[in-house]
Amino acid sequence: MKLLGKLYLIPTTMGESDPMDVLPQTVRRTIEVIDHYIVENDKTARKSIKAVYPEKKQSELVLFTLNKRTEPSEHLDFIKPLLEGKNMGLMSEAGCPGVADPGAVIVKLAHEKGIQVVPLVGPSSILLAMMASGMNGQSFTFNGYLPIDKDEKKSAIRHFERLSQDKNQSQLFIETPYRNNKLIEDLLQILNPSTHLCIATDITLPTEFIKTLKVSDWKKLKIDIDKRPTIFIIHKI
Amino acid sequence: MKLLGKLYLIPTTMGESDPMDVLPQTVRRTIEVIDHYIVENDKTARKSIKAVYPEKKQSELVLFTLNKRTEPSEHLDFIKPLLEGKNMGLMSEAGCPGVADPGAVIVKLAHEKGIQVVPLVGPSSILLAMMASGMNGQSFTFNGYLPIDKDEKKSAIRHFERLSQDKNQSQLFIETPYRNNKLIEDLLQILNPSTHLCIATDITLPTEFIKTLKVSDWKKLKIDIDKRPTIFIIHKI
Repeated sequence: MKLLGKLYLIPTTMGESDPMDVLPQTVRRTIEVIDHYIVENDKTARKSIKAVYPEKKQSELVLFTLNKRTEPSEHLDFIKPLLEGKNMGLMSEAGCPGVADPGAVIVKLAHEKGIQVVPLVGPSSILLAMMASGMNGQSFTFNGYLPIDKDEKKSAIRHFERLSQDKNQSQLFIETPYRNNKLIEDLLQILNPSTHLCIATDITLPTEFIKTLKVSDWKKLKIDIDKRPTIFIIHKI
Repeated sequence: MKLLGKLYLIPTTMGESDPMDVLPQTVRRTIEVIDHYIVENDKTARKSIKAVYPEKKQSELVLFTLNKRTEPSEHLDFIKPLLEGKNMGLMSEAGCPGVADPGAVIVKLAHEKGIQVVPLVGPSSILLAMMASGMNGQSFTFNGYLPIDKDEKKSAIRHFERLSQDKNQSQLFIETPYRNNKLIEDLLQILNPSTHLCIATDITLPTEFIKTLKVSDWKKLKIDIDKRPTIFIIHKI
């Protein structure tokens, strides 16, 4: 019987912060012993590994870069070390791999090949925003990015608001960060004044900002979250 | 101007495991300085605090117990220390507070009172299962518990399967652990043989079991997860 390696899902920080503030020791111990990684971004991954375990020899690292431009035919090459019995790490550019990043395809392939997948604890903006929103955490949907088209975006927002009321379900979504301020304008214009809106920005960073207010109360504030990664959550009760 | 305390959302382990394997140092440092807690279970919370920071004097802890039987009128009493400028911790029985537990009502109240909410990183079975499932992490719904009624449960399963296909959205749900084996029977009977099913059990514990297979492949296996906490995810492609 051939022994397979294990695929460790290794979280990273959400930006410039001390990795050991948001990562448990297990992440450090895992990086200590793993040399083969599938990563979203080569440079960021090397930086993360160095920050968590400076003693690691960068020259011994074998990195496979997985992003939107990676061909599905390359995936099998990426997991070759696993099939040869070596443990590997999967790493996203920020936060937890496999959620809202290209990593899930590798995890899927691992399951197909009977490879054990081990998720490690780390910061997830989706989950931390959900925790801190005070909204219904018994039922929630992460909807990913909003549509780019103006009209489609507006109807998506209206759709999420309706869903949140019909299903008593918190609705999470994200926007390309440089469009955040425009999105807030749209949200305050489109949503019902009594709808709850949570804006969760720079989660786990020193500039973290998380606030849940009714739309009518947001209208009284001036807020600038241009280019800062943000999770939006709405719930109409 | 009155200075308000901050509400820290403090995660705990998912069962018998070394807390520092799944919690970052920040959790330890936070518990070191906080004496006032709102907790789901008094006994479990004291045990968690002791495990993370044994030097903490248990006699100095002030715990408010929040569960399904707590009256909404008590909530304002619970957050009094925050209003008086003391930092407080919110703690679930296991995992991350505010998601799939009663804690969200306190977070909601905190936002209403202008109190800053600080979520700390820790293990979430929902998120770790999602990461490790290899299913679509760009769009997913956590649906909470399945209905207890047999017929309602069956139609809920059918509904989730349909939704997962129509919206290309992973559907997560949970069941009371002693009904897990029965649920697997139901799932294998009701779902389409080509639907993907992830069973994620005892996440972060030494007995962790996470596997994604097509329903037709699950039928070939014998699996016993009686009374073990489990997240189920389905996706029909």
